[in-house]
Amino acid sequence: MTRTEKPLAIALGDPAGIGPEIVAKAWEARHKVEMPPFFTVGDPASVSTVWGGPVQVVTSAAEAMTCYDDALPVIELPALAPAIPGKPDLAGARCALDSLELALGLTRSGSASALVTAPVSKAQLYAIGFSHAGQTEFVAERCGVGRENIAMMLAGPSLRTVPVTTHVAFADVPKLLTKALILARARATLRGLSRDFGIERPRLAVAGLNPHAGEGGALGREEIEIIAPAIAALKAEGHDVSGPHAADTMFHERARAGYDAALCLYHDQALIPLKALHFDEGVNLTLGLPIVRTAPDHGTAFAMAGKDRAEPGAMIAAICLAAECAKQRRQGQSHAGK
Amino acid sequence: MTRTEKPLAIALGDPAGIGPEIVAKAWEARHKVEMPPFFTVGDPASVSTVWGGPVQVVTSAAEAMTCYDDALPVIELPALAPAIPGKPDLAGARCALDSLELALGLTRSGSASALVTAPVSKAQLYAIGFSHAGQTEFVAERCGVGRENIAMMLAGPSLRTVPVTTHVAFADVPKLLTKALILARARATLRGLSRDFGIERPRLAVAGLNPHAGEGGALGREEIEIIAPAIAALKAEGHDVSGPHAADTMFHERARAGYDAALCLYHDQALIPLKALHFDEGVNLTLGLPIVRTAPDHGTAFAMAGKDRAEPGAMIAAICLAAECAKQRRQGQSHAGK
Repeated sequence: MTRTEKPLAIALGDPAGIGPEIVAKAWEARHKVEMPPFFTVGDPASVSTVWGGPVQVVTSAAEAMTCYDDALPVIELPALAPAIPGKPDLAGARCALDSLELALGLTRSGSASALVTAPVSKAQLYAIGFSHAGQTEFVAERCGVGRENIAMMLAGPSLRTVPVTTHVAFADVPKLLTKALILARARATLRGLSRDFGIERPRLAVAGLNPHAGEGGALGREEIEIIAPAIAALKAEGHDVSGPHAADTMFHERARAGYDAALCLYHDQALIPLKALHFDEGVNLTLGLPIVRTAPDHGTAFAMAGKDRAEPGAMIAAICLAAECAKQRRQGQSHAGK
Repeated sequence: MTRTEKPLAIALGDPAGIGPEIVAKAWEARHKVEMPPFFTVGDPASVSTVWGGPVQVVTSAAEAMTCYDDALPVIELPALAPAIPGKPDLAGARCALDSLELALGLTRSGSASALVTAPVSKAQLYAIGFSHAGQTEFVAERCGVGRENIAMMLAGPSLRTVPVTTHVAFADVPKLLTKALILARARATLRGLSRDFGIERPRLAVAGLNPHAGEGGALGREEIEIIAPAIAALKAEGHDVSGPHAADTMFHERARAGYDAALCLYHDQALIPLKALHFDEGVNLTLGLPIVRTAPDHGTAFAMAGKDRAEPGAMIAAICLAAECAKQRRQGQSHAGK
């Protein structure tokens, strides 16, 4: 990656979580791993508290590029009270939200090439009046995209999954599962595979809901009444879509070779295989946005914060994937412009 | 394993499936893999049709031991019509059921040290009047054990899972999940880990039902109302039981090191991680029986039968695990008798 490209913007997340540490450790790894340049947005003190390396306060993405080789560039958004690692508070939540807003704005405006978000505490955000389900929904709203048209992709080295329903109770999944929702998520996924991964004719494998995909209706009828009709509609649109597959036999190595992404029907169906296989390198990628946005697929880990024990692997993977997707989009646009 | 021990009995399963081929290939591997001697029960013609190696018809387990080095010993139960690989029929289903009954009887009587069952077609069995849910329930009934007191363990090299509910529709899982059922399966699992695996103080990790184990009730209340009380009761009995754990973060390598078995609440929660990690070596072990019974964790694969493409890995794993568990039980009994 040449330096003529824009850097990535990383929102530092909750300053009392492991965000500051993993961002700093990712910067430390910039020579070991082929990584694009980035700057972070948040409270520089939250980084200095947990990390002894060089931090440089900057005021713009352009200025960040001039110091990136020698120090971690931070666009400063100080917390109202100093963050204590492992002790989240409302000042930290406010700082996390402001950091997200600014990093998003810099990406939307084109100063940054993509957005990466470190983990936040939803409980703390709700306490300061945050009314979105999570960072993903906040970003979608700021980008003017409806919730039904985005999709949360979990991406690891050998598996990509997208859940149709996400943070809802198990018992509510059958009620929420409609042909329309499956179609919306499938289309967002197929578009994302083309636009962000450069896959010309993406292959989507759709999971069944019931054991053995319902065994022809004997173990549940959602496959027959909802899922198969959605797959038929996608095929009629010309897409390469297969299923409904028995969920337990679609995630082993040979099966994974048969598709580019698996469309799963509920949170754990998508997350269990992804994290069983790729726990330390799972990336959360939001499909369907006008910008590229990724996040490491883990939480704030408050219990681990400030102990120099956090692993930056997933953050590094999130940075690298964001850069790849941004590059893919630029190539797609220049190709389309010819 | 010395030859003073009894051989294992393998029911050949549906003669039109891959059972005959994987049993024969397992015998072929007897020098490559450290494997106990075994004989099989079924139609010798179904083996000869798909495999060119030596088959020896025998009439007893003792006779099987005398020829095992040179030929695959088969206790003969001929099908009423010759089985055609890939074309299941009622004669084959009858043969599969008779083979299961005889292999089970030889194990119950002590002629064989453990029972291994090759895959059957439930649809074909139902067509001849079979009224059990599957081979497991048939074996349990013949052994005089109630269905609620057995548990289906899926075992791979680095993970053991036990589903609380099994072959039921997704939407029925919340209705079927009770504290009593969780307790019964947990106790069967803990006893099995002690008796069949020789683990003195087994550690059981219990999964949550909802995403993030319900997030304190925000995403479902089963954890609070059913699962946590069951765990508390097991702890009060002195067991080492943890949870409810977020299901998506309990199957990666470091997490797996923290327990001997994971108690899962539904079929795919147990089967997705097991098969994602150990597709070709997953073993189904029935806990709670007076005998040891295992099976390879895959189906008849009719589409693959007779093409010399079936992999015997899971059958070999099932044979080896059955022998280990039988040995563990003998040692436990001799220890108890001192």
